[in-house]
Parts: sequence; structure tokens; C-alpha cells
Amino acid sequence: MKRTSLQDQPCTIARSLDIIGDWWTLLIIRDALGGLRRFGEFQRSLGAAKNILAARLKGLVAEGILVNAPASDGSAYQEYLLTEKGRALVPVLVALSQWSSEHAFTPGAHSFVPLDTDTLQPLAKLELRTPAGRVLSNNEVKFPVGV
Amino acid sequence: MKRTSLQDQPCTIARSLDIIGDWWTLLIIRDALGGLRRFGEFQRSLGAAKNILAARLKGLVAEGILVNAPASDGSAYQEYLLTEKGRALVPVLVALSQWSSEHAFTPGAHSFVPLDTDTLQPLAKLELRTPAGRVLSNNEVKFPVGV
Repeated sequence: MKRTSLQDQPCTIARSLDIIGDWWTLLIIRDALGGLRRFGEFQRSLGAAKNILAARLKGLVAEGILVNAPASDGSAYQEYLLTEKGRALVPVLVALSQWSSEHAFTPGAHSFVPLDTDTLQPLAKLELRTPAGRVLSNNEVKFPVGV
Repeated sequence: MKRTSLQDQPCTIARSLDIIGDWWTLLIIRDALGGLRRFGEFQRSLGAAKNILAARLKGLVAEGILVNAPASDGSAYQEYLLTEKGRALVPVLVALSQWSSEHAFTPGAHSFVPLDTDTLQPLAKLELRTPAGRVLSNNEVKFPVGV
């Protein structure tokens, strides 16, 4: 039952969950993508206990998803910035948001979704495609089972 | 710090994590997408303790992601089948797998990824697009922060 049991699994899904499979972790990444950088900002946004937030931030730095940097305004604060590896999680968060919009909200309910920074419009629904470009339904994808 | 604090959040990402933000939950969904249906099959695949697996399966049925059904072979076993809401999580698992392949495996390492059921080839990388079809980079998506 230990999280570490997933670290060496060849299943790509299992290994991703070993790294980011914790909802505080993904909410920290959402907030970092939303522009937050400082411990106090994450704490106010998430309402997380200091010790839990500190542990999650440390874990994200250890995984190379966030990196520590001196404050951009020259103050003594430390900032947490997303690396390329961290920013590469955008499609994961977009997929979660689109599923949630469709299946966890009543139509027309007030909700926040990721937007195109240029037009501030919601993104198009993600499409599953073959390398040749054919669109696949959710029923045309074969998944590995546990090993 | 309670999970229930996310239930009423207008952020679509937060609400999705309230429902599926647990790595056992997503691994059960992966296995169900991979064709597993019975308690014992999930248990062997995941190596999960019976009480934890039973609680997660019950939660997934309560959320309408899995549904209970009599065994397809007429035996006394109960089966867990994915609903449309459950199957709609395919893009989330594909996005996790693609991130993991690129950032958590060394190039060429043995790994399992979701495949096109027809050609058994890995899927094309998911693309972020505007409703008009313009491809967006990970830097061109604006995220909501916590509320």
C-alpha cells in the first residue's frame, strides 16, 4: 500500500500518480499556473496547514516541477516557479477541468475553467487522435492494467 | 483540510480532484478501462488492501463513475462497470500518461501507454486548441487560482 511501490512501475499512468497523485499537489500546480509564487500566497489560496503545504512544495521542488528562486522584487521572500516539467502538466489540468465541467457541474452553474490568454475564451474540448490524425472516441483507447 | 471543502468550489479543477483526486481511484479507473470488472481482479492488479479497495469502489459507484451489475457469466459475482461519466475520464488518463512518458521515464525505457485499439499504436500528443482550432502552447492558458 506504499506510494513508493509505484515508482518503478512501467505503467506511465501509475508513475505519474506516484509523482502528482495527491490533490493538494495538483491544486498547488494550478495556483502556480495561475501566477502565485510565494508560500503565503499558496497558503491563502488553498487554506492549507503550513506543515502540509511546506511538505508538498518541498516534494514538488524535489521532483523538478517547481524551482526555488529569490523574490522577483528583491525582497527577502523566496518564490516557487514552475519548471518546463511543471508547465507540461497543463494538458492534465485542462482534461480534469473539462471532465468536471461536463460531469460535476449542472449546466450553466458558475464555474472557473482554464482560458486562452489571448481571447479569454474556454479551450476547445481535447481530442484523442491517432498519429495520423484520426479522432478516437473514449471507447477506442486500450489501457494497460496493473502489473 | 477536509476533502469536502472542495465540493462546492466553482473551480472545475478543484471539484474534479474532490471526486477523483486519489491515486487508488485513478488506478481503479485505469484497470476498469483495461477491462477488469471484479473485486478480485482489481485486488490482484493493484495489490490494495480489501478494505481500502472496497471503500474506493463504493465511492466510485456513489459518484456514478462505476455501476454495479450481475456477473456477465451468470455466476454469483458482482461486476463493476464504467458509466459514460467514468469513461469520459479517458482524456485525463491519456494526459497523465503522456506527461509521464515525457518527464518521468528515461527515453527508450520500458513503459505501458494507452493505445489506439485498432492499430495498437500510441496516441498522438494531446493538443490545446482554441474553439477556432488554433493550437495553444502551455504558456497560453490562463488558470483560475483558489477562491
